[in-house]
Parts: sequence; structure tokens; C-alpha cells
Amino acid sequence: MLKRYLLAPGPTPVPPEVLLSMAMPMIHHRAPDFLPILDSAKKGLQWLFQAKGDVLILCSTGTGGMVGAVNNFFNPGDKALVVNGGKFGERWTKICQAYGLKVEEVTVEWGYAVKPEAVEAALKKDPDIKAVFVQATETSTGVYHDIEGLGKVVRNFENTLFIVDAISALVAQDLKTDEWGVDIMIGGSQKGLMLPPGLAFVSVSEKAWKRNETSKMPRFYFNFKKERENLAKNQTNFTSAVTLIIGLNEAIKILQKEGLENVFGRHAKLAHATREAVKALGLGIYSKESPSNSVTAIEAPEGIDGQLIYKKLREKYGITGAGGQDRAKGKIFRLAHLGYADTFDVITGIAALEMVLKELGHSVTLGKGVAAAQEVLMQ
Amino acid sequence: MLKRYLLAPGPTPVPPEVLLSMAMPMIHHRAPDFLPILDSAKKGLQWLFQAKGDVLILCSTGTGGMVGAVNNFFNPGDKALVVNGGKFGERWTKICQAYGLKVEEVTVEWGYAVKPEAVEAALKKDPDIKAVFVQATETSTGVYHDIEGLGKVVRNFENTLFIVDAISALVAQDLKTDEWGVDIMIGGSQKGLMLPPGLAFVSVSEKAWKRNETSKMPRFYFNFKKERENLAKNQTNFTSAVTLIIGLNEAIKILQKEGLENVFGRHAKLAHATREAVKALGLGIYSKESPSNSVTAIEAPEGIDGQLIYKKLREKYGITGAGGQDRAKGKIFRLAHLGYADTFDVITGIAALEMVLKELGHSVTLGKGVAAAQEVLMQ
Repeated sequence: MLKRYLLAPGPTPVPPEVLLSMAMPMIHHRAPDFLPILDSAKKGLQWLFQAKGDVLILCSTGTGGMVGAVNNFFNPGDKALVVNGGKFGERWTKICQAYGLKVEEVTVEWGYAVKPEAVEAALKKDPDIKAVFVQATETSTGVYHDIEGLGKVVRNFENTLFIVDAISALVAQDLKTDEWGVDIMIGGSQKGLMLPPGLAFVSVSEKAWKRNETSKMPRFYFNFKKERENLAKNQTNFTSAVTLIIGLNEAIKILQKEGLENVFGRHAKLAHATREAVKALGLGIYSKESPSNSVTAIEAPEGIDGQLIYKKLREKYGITGAGGQDRAKGKIFRLAHLGYADTFDVITGIAALEMVLKELGHSVTLGKGVAAAQEVLMQ
Repeated sequence: MLKRYLLAPGPTPVPPEVLLSMAMPMIHHRAPDFLPILDSAKKGLQWLFQAKGDVLILCSTGTGGMVGAVNNFFNPGDKALVVNGGKFGERWTKICQAYGLKVEEVTVEWGYAVKPEAVEAALKKDPDIKAVFVQATETSTGVYHDIEGLGKVVRNFENTLFIVDAISALVAQDLKTDEWGVDIMIGGSQKGLMLPPGLAFVSVSEKAWKRNETSKMPRFYFNFKKERENLAKNQTNFTSAVTLIIGLNEAIKILQKEGLENVFGRHAKLAHATREAVKALGLGIYSKESPSNSVTAIEAPEGIDGQLIYKKLREKYGITGAGGQDRAKGKIFRLAHLGYADTFDVITGIAALEMVLKELGHSVTLGKGVAAAQEVLMQ
């Protein structure tokens, strides 16, 4: 028997009460039974996004929300500034280019956070830039970009939208959409929201809705204006992902019971404990600045392949974390503490890591990482 | 207590074993646990589509598959021939126009099936038409279009792709994708496949893949070439809708145990029984030709609003069918017999209809429709 533990930065574990809510018999998405469920989920998302405006619910992965953020607000030839500090920064560039936007990048070394001043300088240099695209948490490097600081910069440029991929950050980080001036923020179901993959969430500011009127790109499935009109009637533009939205409602109830501050505090503590354990084991944190509360990217010791650590964790101990991506492949492995995660998820991950490292011939004092984590977790 | 019965043409009831398979703890979409599940689902879809080539699995509603069918194979200005005989025919036109295709319509009166000769004449008149778009079952009218006959026509035009929305027809109708020369066929999860909404399926022929190489439209989320490359590795391009694909695998197992011929035979019998019951009650079938095996569109008696029948069925008897759409609104109501449906779903729907009609003051002999259905169902 091998018990399974899911410590990946998405999909993440789904609480049993959410799983069971989704196992109830199917109901119709336009029938009166479903409308109050969508209404409640909609309001719950506004609470979670800290946004007064619409938070659209799309039947797609998070990437569908990113595509919609490009496809609904621009025209070919528009200039976009992309913060590229990892694999998902690259994705913004690819999406923008796929739709004919002219992309300028603020390149950030992997493992580092963007400096808001760098974005400010780029915007001042070219006032024709129509949007700044960034990740809140860049999952590939474990770095959290300073969304508050960036918001202070971008809000001074009235023709520029501030667009944040918060797919991995939502729930783990305190993200004040309205207060920080985020025009479009994107979330996904299979991360902090503790749901299966299949839903994207997109908040849209009034400034962005005005821009939407000028956008003439072809679109049909991700048509935000039509989604907004339907959302006002507690519907979605096409068939609602009924099951996932029922689960969303349950997941939000769990988060509301805990309270936003406690949710963020829990994630911060789990992330801190993970980092202290890693340091106690003599390993490096790949995020040299601003490590995220969602996932910790850990450097493999000299001479040991990070992918091998990831595989051993999974095959011998049943723990699915994540390896490194692209240029970080082999150099790092990642352990998430995201969504339905508590003290003993961290302890499990660290204890298994100690055993794997020892088995791979690395010098390790068993229990040392665990003890360092415990110190933090008991605070 | 009001027990609920879902007799809508999507979403449809989900079998308990499928619901429970989806309530299992989450697994990672790139981990070895999941790959054989996707492999099995992929092969099962080929069996169901009667297609040797790829059947892509997309995280979206069925409409996402329709959008992808337009977005991946054409260029703006290309000519498209759309069979428009209902609300979903209209949707083909809207999607094609959204992406800049020039649409010519073969208009079919609601309630009637397209004549393959009409399509042939249009193609002969304009050999520059790049594709024919049609529904297998037009859900709004309950009509099944003759896909075999249309396939025989379109295959003679080597520059023309044959694109079939089989979202409501799949599982209920025998659709021989390869044999009939269907280049792109689209299915959805929440219909005959007995799953929650959230997946689209798209089969693509070699002829269509060649056309894909010439298509330069902007696309990112519904990028079929990338989906194909990933499918070969038992992956999807973005995060897989893990839960729904696990359920898909279970649903296909149920269908395979029954056998394709039996599945089609069951749907044909349920549909036939429903129609005989409706006739015995003195009501008209809205589909004047080629009624589908998925859903029966029933004309409301003179002087009774079809929407009222639909509402009474739901509110008093817990039965969610469907009303009429657009120009058929008020004139008809619909009862589906699609997916996880058997003898007593038909009996329940007809018995409830008899009671509702009587309560609305219509002259009805209680049990007369049920008896007519029984006669067919006992054969």
C-alpha cells in the first residue's frame, strides 16, 4: 500500500466535503435550483478577489482566462508590456503575440521579483503601452511579484490596464484587486480554491470594461461582455460547468468560515516553515527574492538531479510535488503548500525529502528539517 | 419531498458509478497515475466516434469545440456553407462570422431536415466553399440531419471539409465518422456521455489536418495542433480536467459493456416510445421529418403555452425537461431520452405530461400515452 499525497502547485487536494458536493445528482444550469448556487459563488468570488465588480466564471483552465484577458481588450498592433520572469511570464508573451500584440518585455532573472521601477521606466519611455501583464506568483520560480507596488505604478498611466495572472497566488496571497488598482485578475479552480481543474475566474474593472468597447478582435467562446450580461442573470454564456460551480460554492464556504486573514496567515506560515526546513537541511531556496506563499522552489544539492528527487518522492513515498521547468529543470524541485494544506502536509513533505536525500547519498541529519518546520508551525 | 428527474437535452443524469469515480481524491495530470486514464479515455472516444484518428479532449463546453473547428482550419474571407435549421445552426453562422468567414446558409424550416441535394446544389454553384457546417441533431427542433447522406455529397468536393456538431447526437445516433467522411465531429460531455458539463471532444480527419497547416488565424487556448501533439503523449495542452476525464473513462466503460449497437438501439426505442405516446395523447411532434433519438420536441396543444407545460412539469412533478427556444418558444416543450435513460424515464415523463395536461384543462385519457409507450418499450 502506498498512500498518496498531492503537494503539487496545482492540481491541489480537494476537501472531502467539496468532492461529495460534486457527487450529487446533476441539475440543470438554467433551472431555478442552480441560479442561487451561481449567485452565491459569484458573491463569494467577489469576496475572495476583494473586488466590487464582476468576477466572470469561465468553463476552461486558467489559461483560458489569460487568453480572454488578451482577446477582449485589445486590437492587433497594440503595445503590451510583459513582465517575464519565468515560464508563465513567457506564456503572457506567447498569448499576446498569438493575437498580434506588440510585446515589450521587462525581463527578470528567474528566481527574482520584478522591480516596480523597471515597469515605471518602461511605461514612461513608451506612453503608448496599452497594458502591463504580470504573474502574481510565478509558479515556475516560486516568486511572488509585488502586485501592490506595481499597481501604484500602473495606476498613473491612464491608458494602461494592469492585468495580473493570479492563478497560483489566489487564496495564498492577500490580493486587493480594487484597492491596488488591478484591472483584470485571473484565477483558476485547481489551485488555492481546492477544486478540480476546469474553471477560470476573471475580475474586470470599469476601466477595463470601457476598453472592451474598443476591442474588435474575433472572439466567441471567451466573450467577456456576454459573460457579464449572463452573470447579471446568474447564468453563464454557454452551459455552466454545473458540478464545478457547486464545488466552488462549497470551497468558498470553507474559506469564509476560516476568514480571509486566517487563510492568508495559514499559507504564509506553511511557506515560512517549508523554507526554514529547507535551509536547516542546507539546501537553497531558488526564489532569491519574495518567495511565494503558494509553492517553494528548492535547489537540488550539487551533484543530485532535481528531477530524480521529484521522482523518488513520488515513486517511493507517494508524494507528488513538481520538478523544475525549462531552464530550471534538473536544478530544482518544488513543494506546494496551497489550498487544502496544513501543518502535516509540510511535515510530510519535509520528512520525505530528508529520507530521499539520504537515500541519494546526500549527507542529512534526519529530523533536522522537520524540527525547523515545527518551530515555525508551533508559533 | 419532491424527487427530481432530469429529462433535459443536456445536462443529463450522471450514473452513480461515474459520480463516485469523480469523487475520488485529486491526482496530478502529468503524473504516471493519470496517463493510462487519458490513454484509455482517448481510445474509448475513438471507439465511440467510430474514428481511427485523433479525438481531442478539450476543457470547455461543446461550444468551445465548435469555435475550435472554425478557428483552426480557415482564414478570414473563406467561404462556409452552414445548414441552418434551428438555434444551433444559427450558432454555426455566428461563430463563422465572428472569425471573418463568409457564410452562405442552406436555410431549413424549423422542424425539417436538410436535403442533401440542397447542399450539393450549393456546393456545385460555388466550388470555392471551404466547409459545410451542420448539426447531427438540431436540439432546438429535435431533428436529426442525414449525416450519412450529406457525407456522400461533401466527399465529392475535395476542397470542402465536412464539419458536424454532434454534441447532442453522439451516443444516441449511430454516427460513422470515418465511413461517412466526416472531417471534424464535435461532442460534449453533458449529453449522451452521461457526464457533467466541462469537456468537448473533437475528431479531426487527415484531410482536416492538412487544411490546419494553411490556417493562420490567431489562436492559443483551442490550438488543435498542440492538442494533437500532447494527446500522442497522453496529455492535454494545458491542465487536464482530471476529474471529468476520470468520469469519462468510467462512462465509456458503461457504454462499452452495453455495446454500441445496443446503445443506439436503446435510444431509438426510447425515442420511438416517446413519439408514440405523444401521438396517442393527440399532440403533434414538432420534428416533421427525421425525429432524433436524443430529444423529442412536442407541440403544445392549441391554447396552452408550451412554457407553462415545461414549468408545471418541473414545479409540481420535479421533472426538468426543456421549453422551446426563440421562435419555437411557447409552441413546444421537449423531453429528452439521452444518455443514462431507460424505460421508466420515458414512462415518468409521459405520465407526468398526462397529469399536467389534465390539470391545465386539456382533455386527456390518463394512461393512454403511457400505454402507447409501453407497447413500444416491451418489443
